[in-house]
Amino acid sequence: MTDYTPPLRDIRFVLDHVVDLDRLLEHPDLAALDRDLVTGLLEEAGRFTASALAPTNRDGDTIGATFAGGEVTTPESFHTAYKNYVAAGWGALQHPTEMGGGGFPLVVSNCFKEMMTSANMAFALGPLLTTGAVYAMLHHADEDLQQTWLPKMVSGEWSGTMNLTEPNAGSDVGALTTKAQPVEDGTYRITGQKIYITWGEHDLTDQIVHLVLARLPDAPAGTRGISLFVVPKFLLDDDGNPAERNDVTCVSIEHKVGIHGSPTCVMAYGEGGDGAVGWLVGEEHAGMRAMFTMMNDARLGVGQQGLSIAERAYQQALQYAQDRRQGTAPGAERGTQSPIIDHADVRRMLLGMKARIEAMRALTMTNAIAIDFAHTLDGDEAAHWQAVADLYTPLSKAWCTDLGVELTSTALQVHGGMGYVEETGVAQHWRDARIAPIYEGTNGIQALDLVGRKLGLDDGDFVPAHLASLRSLLDDDREELASTMAGVARGLDVLEEATDWLVAHRDDARDVFAAATPYLRLFATAVAGALLAKGARAALDEVEAGNDVAFHEAKLTTARFFAEQVVPEVHALLPQVTATGRDLFALDADQLAG
Amino acid sequence: MTDYTPPLRDIRFVLDHVVDLDRLLEHPDLAALDRDLVTGLLEEAGRFTASALAPTNRDGDTIGATFAGGEVTTPESFHTAYKNYVAAGWGALQHPTEMGGGGFPLVVSNCFKEMMTSANMAFALGPLLTTGAVYAMLHHADEDLQQTWLPKMVSGEWSGTMNLTEPNAGSDVGALTTKAQPVEDGTYRITGQKIYITWGEHDLTDQIVHLVLARLPDAPAGTRGISLFVVPKFLLDDDGNPAERNDVTCVSIEHKVGIHGSPTCVMAYGEGGDGAVGWLVGEEHAGMRAMFTMMNDARLGVGQQGLSIAERAYQQALQYAQDRRQGTAPGAERGTQSPIIDHADVRRMLLGMKARIEAMRALTMTNAIAIDFAHTLDGDEAAHWQAVADLYTPLSKAWCTDLGVELTSTALQVHGGMGYVEETGVAQHWRDARIAPIYEGTNGIQALDLVGRKLGLDDGDFVPAHLASLRSLLDDDREELASTMAGVARGLDVLEEATDWLVAHRDDARDVFAAATPYLRLFATAVAGALLAKGARAALDEVEAGNDVAFHEAKLTTARFFAEQVVPEVHALLPQVTATGRDLFALDADQLAG
Repeated sequence: MTDYTPPLRDIRFVLDHVVDLDRLLEHPDLAALDRDLVTGLLEEAGRFTASALAPTNRDGDTIGATFAGGEVTTPESFHTAYKNYVAAGWGALQHPTEMGGGGFPLVVSNCFKEMMTSANMAFALGPLLTTGAVYAMLHHADEDLQQTWLPKMVSGEWSGTMNLTEPNAGSDVGALTTKAQPVEDGTYRITGQKIYITWGEHDLTDQIVHLVLARLPDAPAGTRGISLFVVPKFLLDDDGNPAERNDVTCVSIEHKVGIHGSPTCVMAYGEGGDGAVGWLVGEEHAGMRAMFTMMNDARLGVGQQGLSIAERAYQQALQYAQDRRQGTAPGAERGTQSPIIDHADVRRMLLGMKARIEAMRALTMTNAIAIDFAHTLDGDEAAHWQAVADLYTPLSKAWCTDLGVELTSTALQVHGGMGYVEETGVAQHWRDARIAPIYEGTNGIQALDLVGRKLGLDDGDFVPAHLASLRSLLDDDREELASTMAGVARGLDVLEEATDWLVAHRDDARDVFAAATPYLRLFATAVAGALLAKGARAALDEVEAGNDVAFHEAKLTTARFFAEQVVPEVHALLPQVTATGRDLFALDADQLAG
Repeated sequence: MTDYTPPLRDIRFVLDHVVDLDRLLEHPDLAALDRDLVTGLLEEAGRFTASALAPTNRDGDTIGATFAGGEVTTPESFHTAYKNYVAAGWGALQHPTEMGGGGFPLVVSNCFKEMMTSANMAFALGPLLTTGAVYAMLHHADEDLQQTWLPKMVSGEWSGTMNLTEPNAGSDVGALTTKAQPVEDGTYRITGQKIYITWGEHDLTDQIVHLVLARLPDAPAGTRGISLFVVPKFLLDDDGNPAERNDVTCVSIEHKVGIHGSPTCVMAYGEGGDGAVGWLVGEEHAGMRAMFTMMNDARLGVGQQGLSIAERAYQQALQYAQDRRQGTAPGAERGTQSPIIDHADVRRMLLGMKARIEAMRALTMTNAIAIDFAHTLDGDEAAHWQAVADLYTPLSKAWCTDLGVELTSTALQVHGGMGYVEETGVAQHWRDARIAPIYEGTNGIQALDLVGRKLGLDDGDFVPAHLASLRSLLDDDREELASTMAGVARGLDVLEEATDWLVAHRDDARDVFAAATPYLRLFATAVAGALLAKGARAALDEVEAGNDVAFHEAKLTTARFFAEQVVPEVHALLPQVTATGRDLFALDADQLAG
């Protein structure tokens, strides 16, 4: 297993040349920040994740989280890492300064999250969920609840969870049956069972603050009858310290394919009596709205996991390809064994990984800054960036998590037989990565979101306008960029064709839904190509200026590789988009069984 | 977890309509066989694999093979299953009747192997290796060795292994250093260490017969200096029964991602003294030739594993999609939860799996019968079929094993969160499948074999001629087939274009090797499309004749889906083939690191 090297140069490149960080930092709310401060922070984040967190990743897999008697035990190294995490204030990074947070925009704090997840994905899930819970409460809880719960959640002293899923309510959240009964003192009693609760129980903090979706007695059916509650593991005493145990217990944890260090809990509310004590967050029946508030953020965060885990696996494969000697490469001396990096097929795997990793980083950071702009700008500009965020979020989530599985599999393949042996460590990344296309809305759900909601943004005007703006990124006639620009332009052509087809067929839900998954992949591939092309223009400027030439020439190469050899995937996807649902529904279950 | 239903109807369909079984059965050597006998045999094979073997699959994963003190213990259920396997004579199926075998052609015995591997891949690897060892000895060992070892290997009472790999000799077999010292009695003393030895040690049989590649003292370097030896676990007494322990020991077994029930052993030869006693198989320095004899068979067998494991995972996903209700499908009553099979995106996953599974089955069975024809026919016909077998083998191995990983991943995705929980069982298939692109020559090696050796078959004339013959399969102008034929024809057009490019660039090894992997996938996709098209013509005949209409209409649908929605992948692959190795080698290791 190799160490983890934070990809600070590529992150810096995207911050400098792909997203408009300067514009963002002009905003008065961010007046305390500047580029040097951001750079310094990311370097510090790199040191923390590489030195304090990355070495704990194997413990997460081999020791894992274990369950006994309602308690979850995490590896000893996780305890040390978490203490350091809280002490350094990493949990507070993106939260408002008035809550004790660092006040950093998402595009910066997400860079930390990328590195934290590369270093230890199972560990990082805890803070990720806490951040989501803080976010929901910041936007929906009243002042009193905020003051009670948020300061220690922002600092990371207390962790947070999100409780949505039930056995019969997964993708269909509206089917949930957990009940909330109001009592006279203004609190509620929660009863029901939740499943797949990430870090629902653990031994890293002395309080766990659950956000729980439940139904009031008079609630309408479906998603419009869901309310959100704060349900802490421990009720607080008069000093605000955890005291009496609330009636919420961890019943069991799942035996999963990967992320063994992240306990995935079955949680029972109110098993011991009249219900767990909870407080309503926001208004009655408005729970789904609160979920939607944090959805872009959370889904982007999961998309980024695909990037993170691919980056870590890539680094390991690249190291192995230099160390391992096997066979004689063309041009090498007969009778010698070449490092396998000298074989074209291994090169294809490595460059294929690198180009896609850079594409994912450009996409997710563009997505993040869109959320930042939507929150900091006003009027039409804010609306514009909100639409970008809404559009890119399903792309980031689904495309990057699918690639996370594909690229970790490629990294495993680079290792040959060693890749299949667990001690090598690369297989862990492949197993860990496999959850990301599933949770936080399966990738199929993301695709439905794209064709069902996002295509209709701004009465259907937004997507065509946005594609036109992406096309303008290609407006550069320097010879070194010709093939890159041409390749991406063809990708955008096909994306427009696919979009037109979907718009023309919008009245046939079956055809639109049948097209959803290939359309999402097509969309993300073309968009990512355009963002890499934008970076390539800047890279060529730097090369021409003689700045860090080797690094920037590599950017030209990865962008060209992506444009020439990855973007053509759109030609395989377009026929899937336009095929209609006819054949998909032609066979009954007996015929499908053969 | 679902039961396993042997796909007898689809196997029968391929035997009836895609491969020319009747022609094969005309051969005098196969005079004892007829269609009814084959059908009866496969039905019996289906019963055995479904009832005796499939229920043991989870034990293989959860209990697995364990190692202690040089001994390997396999699950109790494996013992019962293996006894039944030997008792029923399944191990003998493909071996010659004069050795006690069943005398069945490969195209039939491989159908049993497909089902055995679906039922329990880890278990099936033992018999697969034994079959390979028998095969090598049948073709290269002298009469005396054959009489000593083969009868009980054919019956399965004794198992066999193949010992090629060493820590520094994986893909580069020629780098191996295990030594063989001749002694006066005509035997040899073998010393060295072998790794990744499948079923190298276990408790299912009372003898294990190792075939070991090693170097004689005077051996030339590389693959031309390798000889093959029989090295049994136990030396035989005068009655031919296992007696004294030979100096071969299992040092450890690997902790692998999957196929936990199959012990992957580190084997030490001659650790205790002067070397393990071995007997030379064939001539000195001719070990690689012996390996090549069995290579098509073994690689096809591994390719078929991709099919097998995809089939098992597909069956589980199909069942889950009917059982699990979530969300309301278009057209379903509001407020009801539909079985997820009614959602277009789930349909896409299911039909995508089914179409590719049928394509893999058509390809691997065509590959198998090509090997049969090469062995049973004479002269030009035999040479023709040998060339088909040589060409198809890397396609079967690499394409089917890549699809095995992709399709088991899809099956996992159909299960949503349950897919990531080990108890569901579908994740085992995904983990098990991941070895197949690696062993028996990585898929990168297969691609090099295709562009390096197979393109040059018959001085380069064979591939173009074969593509023309595939094109003739499309010669059917019935309206129901129009889209299928057109789609496959486009695939073949692109394959010809890619082939022409490779031929034109054959002098630049770097460009050819850079193209290898995408070319293989392109090749296999187009060929499989043509074979499905052949099946579709027959299916339409059956539909028109009113025979089993629902089943045959499903064949029309899967072929059309494959032609319309899978074959277009060739358009994504062609630019990868023709991109040259320029960008792949543009970056040095520092640049690749970022």
